Order: sequence, then C-alpha cells, then structure tokens
Amino acid sequence: MHLVTCQLAISLDGFIAGPNQSLENPLGEGGMRLHEWAFSNASWRAQHGMEGGEHNADSQVIEEATQGIGAYLMGRKMFGGGDGPWDENWTGWWGDEPPYHAPVFVLTHHPRQPLELRGTTFTFVTDGIESALEQARAAAGDQNVAIAGGAQAVQQYLAAGLLDQLQLHIVPVVLGSGERLLVDVGNPLLQPVQVVASPSVTHVTYRVLR
Amino acid sequence: MHLVTCQLAISLDGFIAGPNQSLENPLGEGGMRLHEWAFSNASWRAQHGMEGGEHNADSQVIEEATQGIGAYLMGRKMFGGGDGPWDENWTGWWGDEPPYHAPVFVLTHHPRQPLELRGTTFTFVTDGIESALEQARAAAGDQNVAIAGGAQAVQQYLAAGLLDQLQLHIVPVVLGSGERLLVDVGNPLLQPVQVVASPSVTHVTYRVLR
Repeated sequence: MHLVTCQLAISLDGFIAGPNQSLENPLGEGGMRLHEWAFSNASWRAQHGMEGGEHNADSQVIEEATQGIGAYLMGRKMFGGGDGPWDENWTGWWGDEPPYHAPVFVLTHHPRQPLELRGTTFTFVTDGIESALEQARAAAGDQNVAIAGGAQAVQQYLAAGLLDQLQLHIVPVVLGSGERLLVDVGNPLLQPVQVVASPSVTHVTYRVLR
Repeated sequence: MHLVTCQLAISLDGFIAGPNQSLENPLGEGGMRLHEWAFSNASWRAQHGMEGGEHNADSQVIEEATQGIGAYLMGRKMFGGGDGPWDENWTGWWGDEPPYHAPVFVLTHHPRQPLELRGTTFTFVTDGIESALEQARAAAGDQNVAIAGGAQAVQQYLAAGLLDQLQLHIVPVVLGSGERLLVDVGNPLLQPVQVVASPSVTHVTYRVLR
C-alpha cells in the first residue's frame, strides 16, 4: 500500500524558508542554513554527483528520503517562474538534469505542455490537488507519492487529510521570519513513529492519523 | 559549574500556550494538549502526590526535569495575578503547596514582600533579569537555575545570552495560535545534545553555544 509522504527541513521556529525569497535566492535569507547538514553530507553529495562530505547519522536519512518514491507533487512556487501564465523557456530551478528522476506533477492555475528534462517529466495540473494526486498515484504504481513542497502545497494536502506521513528535519536555527510550514492545516492528529538524532539535526517522522 | 536551564512543552507549530489565556484557563485554549503526556505519566503523578499513570520513555525525562535545580526564575505572567500592582492575596496558580520546593525569583515591575508557601519562597525582583539571575545563582549554590517560564522570560534570557540549555518537549499537536516561544530571541547558536523519543513526544535538549 503506497503512502503520500513529505519530508522537509524546518527551523526550530517553524520556517521552511527564510524571508525575501526570490529568483536569485529561492530559499530566502538564511534559508540555506536549513540545508547545510544535507549539503555537507557524503550521501547527498553522492546523489548529486559530488565527492567528499561527512558520513554520520544524517546519511541514512538522506538515502532513505529518495527511496521508494514513484512520483512527486509540487507547488507552482516550488517549480518557480512567477505567478502568471508560463514562460515556456522557464524549466525550473534545477538545471538541465533535475534531481527527481520520476514523474513530477506541478500544481498551477495556468496550463502548460509537459516538460521533459533528462529523466524527469513535469506535468502541469490545473484542476486541483486531488486530480494531481490521482495522476501521481497512477504514475507511482505501488511506490509512494512524495510532496516535494513548497509550504502551500503541503498545507493543502495536510488540511485535506491526504498526507499520510510527514518527516521533519528539525534544524536548530532560529530564522525569525520567512515561510511557515504549519499554518492553515487544521487540527491534524500526528504520531511520531521514528526519530533519528544527529549532532546537527533531529529527524522526526510523523504518521498522520485518520 | 551550574547551568541556567529551561524545559518547556511546545506544539509542533511553536506555541507553549494556546490562545485566550485567562485566570480560569492559564494554559489557553487547547494548551492542556501540550501537557497530557506528562499529566498521564506515573512519574509526574507521583511528584504531585497522585497514584497511577503510565511508565514509559517520558518518565525519566520528567524525573530529570526537576533534579539538580537550586532555584527558579519566573515571569510575572507565569506567577499570574495581572499586570498592575500586586494584590497581596494572590498567591500564584499552584495552591497552598507550590511544586517548586526551592527559591523562586519572580520578574515584575511592581515591588512586593517575599511570599513563603510550604517550602517554596517567592521573591519579587523589580530591577531586571540580570539582577534576578544573580540572586537565583546565589540561592542555587552549585545547583542549576531553571527558568520556569513563561515565554517572555525565556525570550529575554535567551536573547541576552544568559541561557545555557533549553529542553523542548515537542508535542505533535498543531495549536494554530497562542503564545509563541521563539520570537525576539535574536540568532542563538543551538546544538542538540540529547534526544529522547517516546510514542507521544520528542524531547530534545539544546545547548546554547556562545
């Protein structure tokens, strides 16, 4: 039975990105601090074709984060390119070879033809989160569907009771402002089912109870 | 070498109390949900003269939370009784036998004579957080000084670089609104030094680096 999952790095004060996000700085001011533990890890570096990095308790978490995922869901803001109709030249933040290597379904109000970039196909869905999930489930087969972000997409699926599992990488930094994850999500029943502690991050996996 | 410590239950969205706190409901709406794991635990119940309750991974955390503490610091709001000059009949939220059993220093703008209630002496400090800490350190001897709350007192000591250790009991509930802990605290450097996971709460102890 596949699950709808999500894993996100979050500051101790609840932000998944810093303030003033822009095309030049999609993580927002200070937002990079949420990801340094991953970027400096040997497992993350290997996944992205880089050498070096540390091996520690975070490594296994990083490796498991991409396993068993058959399709991704993503908000328009996460894919980037502004709010209006698409500029067909915009191909996302990730360069010529996006890291997903699986079908990605992008929630948007503006239609666009599918975009294929070296092993990752982006399909643009304009008829709502349930339709996008249905398409992602079909594409994923018996594997999991992962919500890649951003905050608004996660909030919508969590509020709708469609998220099964949320893993938070709780990073001990205080950003002060930025994009909060847990707003407008209703009153979900969450149960911690796995905790992995490293010297820099606490990874807690929550099951969303029905 | 003694430490200045603090341990607080916090919701997954960052609140240590629910909205609309009042004399009748000092934890705010839904705030009780942050403490159910403790109130239902055998160790907490025994500390408060009650029988029954569960034994689990939370028990040790509860037992350690009151060990080695020689004095407490507390904000005016945590002691209660409104914002203005003191009503000398107000003796705090905790009834005839407060649970502290150690000297408590209450931060306030309004002078008041010390109050002794069966093993707990409350001293009212009007000349600032550093003076209160100095008095608490003197009273604590070689034991730790604990900041009992509320949010504003913790924020002031954290922002001033006077807090050494912060233990958060991260409770998997979403309160949506209420009193946030980590606002106006600057940019503290925190390092997780201990994590205890129970089926209901994740306890993370952070050291505040200088």
